[in-house]
Amino acid sequence: MSFPSLSALRDACRDLPPPDESAAAAVAARQAQLTKPPGSLGRLEQLVAWLARWQGHAPRLERVDVLVFAGNHGVTAQGVSAYPAAVTAQMVANFSAGGAAINQLSRIAGARLRVIPLALDRPTEDFTRAPAMDERAFLDAVAQGEAAVAPEADLVCLGEMGIGNTTAAAALAAALFGGGGARWAGRGTGVDDAGLARKRAAVDAGLARHAGLSGDPLALAAALGGRELAAILGSTLAARRRRIPVLLDGFVATAAVAPLARLRDDALDHALAAHVSAEAAHRTLLANLGLVPLLDLGLRLGEASGATLAVPLLRAALACHTGMATFAEAGVANKEV
Amino acid sequence: MSFPSLSALRDACRDLPPPDESAAAAVAARQAQLTKPPGSLGRLEQLVAWLARWQGHAPRLERVDVLVFAGNHGVTAQGVSAYPAAVTAQMVANFSAGGAAINQLSRIAGARLRVIPLALDRPTEDFTRAPAMDERAFLDAVAQGEAAVAPEADLVCLGEMGIGNTTAAAALAAALFGGGGARWAGRGTGVDDAGLARKRAAVDAGLARHAGLSGDPLALAAALGGRELAAILGSTLAARRRRIPVLLDGFVATAAVAPLARLRDDALDHALAAHVSAEAAHRTLLANLGLVPLLDLGLRLGEASGATLAVPLLRAALACHTGMATFAEAGVANKEV
Repeated sequence: MSFPSLSALRDACRDLPPPDESAAAAVAARQAQLTKPPGSLGRLEQLVAWLARWQGHAPRLERVDVLVFAGNHGVTAQGVSAYPAAVTAQMVANFSAGGAAINQLSRIAGARLRVIPLALDRPTEDFTRAPAMDERAFLDAVAQGEAAVAPEADLVCLGEMGIGNTTAAAALAAALFGGGGARWAGRGTGVDDAGLARKRAAVDAGLARHAGLSGDPLALAAALGGRELAAILGSTLAARRRRIPVLLDGFVATAAVAPLARLRDDALDHALAAHVSAEAAHRTLLANLGLVPLLDLGLRLGEASGATLAVPLLRAALACHTGMATFAEAGVANKEV
Repeated sequence: MSFPSLSALRDACRDLPPPDESAAAAVAARQAQLTKPPGSLGRLEQLVAWLARWQGHAPRLERVDVLVFAGNHGVTAQGVSAYPAAVTAQMVANFSAGGAAINQLSRIAGARLRVIPLALDRPTEDFTRAPAMDERAFLDAVAQGEAAVAPEADLVCLGEMGIGNTTAAAALAAALFGGGGARWAGRGTGVDDAGLARKRAAVDAGLARHAGLSGDPLALAAALGGRELAAILGSTLAARRRRIPVLLDGFVATAAVAPLARLRDDALDHALAAHVSAEAAHRTLLANLGLVPLLDLGLRLGEASGATLAVPLLRAALACHTGMATFAEAGVANKEV
């Protein structure tokens, strides 16, 4: 289901399947019978209903996939990162060897990790000088994201690795929601004051160069984003069409899918913000998107780490839903009315 | 290690072992070598250091115990709960049969659940008319809490079940930190407006009756608390002495240990607030105690549910710490300096 043009992709982003409210209602009906005061499991109850609403059947988490897309960025030429661009490929090798945080977190989550490097030897263009990607490169990356979503997955966690990509994310968020580098660029992996100033300047330069694309979210994603961001957009779209709920990771992953929300207000209803990161712009971006994060633990690693960390919470919510006794089964008196 | 008098218990609460900063420093030294930007796992890094600091050795989570203490409360005569007092024993039976939320959450957490009913056929006195417990009953409950903490546990999650016990917790918190029923009483399991008014009045009546105990945190815990609260206090004290970190559950569990903090400022340094509940007074109480919750998911169930829900986060933090490769091992370039 790759797309021949931006315009075909745009049409697909606006033609999305609706939620299954009957599956969510079945969850709510059972929750009301379980041996606990109504609503006392708080957001855990909402999570189970959300799983059912987007899966379209009784909720399950048998297969959870973690997808980490990696890309390289021409904008690193502007001195925007604390790490050299070679680290992207080195970390992909670390993922393969099992030595990264996401390997450990995937194991704890009972999830399958898949890492998809995207043309690491061909960084995007420096967006302060040219569009990061042409239409073809952008659509190819979107298609790789789509192809990575297995139809049999019950939940997909989406994350990324790419030296320089918080700069791309900041530029894209700024173009979509207003404000410049001062509002959207942060310290990322830990850039110093001078690096932060360069990062803000790069964002502002990118916004100025591509100002003509304003109002076209997908064209902005091509001009300012990156391959891994485009792939995350593609995965999120594919998950919606395949009835698979999505856990979004941090600032970069959220910026990657923000164009979808600009094309259609409810396009991210099947996606949850798993956490809010320490990158300050993430909180701003989530607020702009109306997303309420599950966790707030000061993570700022990427790699789908925050998304995958939230999986055990969903497993716990589902275990309560499926495993608890009803008032009738347990012989417990219900609320006095 | 049961105590012959309130005064002996008070002395023990003030004679606590210090943290092991060398174990915490060893954790920090390793964290700095792992393949991630420094500090990028945020609070997960702090959690591992906290485990080491209070365990006094390399952090581990091989044995995690969940202790749920149950008690009945004379103050239910004041019409403070949405549920009849018989539900306490019915829920204990539900715990034994495996049908409650905490059974499912313990399984997900890889934890051992133990439920300890405390003289359910002998409710405490109605604290609006008399002290809830005399010194003997209070010290017995504290001793049961102490005895329930296995020396070989690596982490203990503490929670409770007891119809009416958010009223006891509100009265105790009010007596320790000031303010009356309007500040500290909330809807608990879901009491209606009239019930909430009765609950606030009961708190105020208890405060007036036992005003003479002001300044004696343990005497207040006996007069206004309950057996399950006293047991949680005893468990928390025993855990400190046995070098076992503690995860506290919600409002009732936090109120139960608040007397310890009034006796010694750092008495709860080995205890973490696992979550902040939907019971509004919990947030107030945590702020008074300087505790920052890990989770904020609107739970208000008790049963150690919030504490146990946080265990997978600690497992994830520890898995990253022990399983990740160092920069040297992985051949990843470290930060440019």
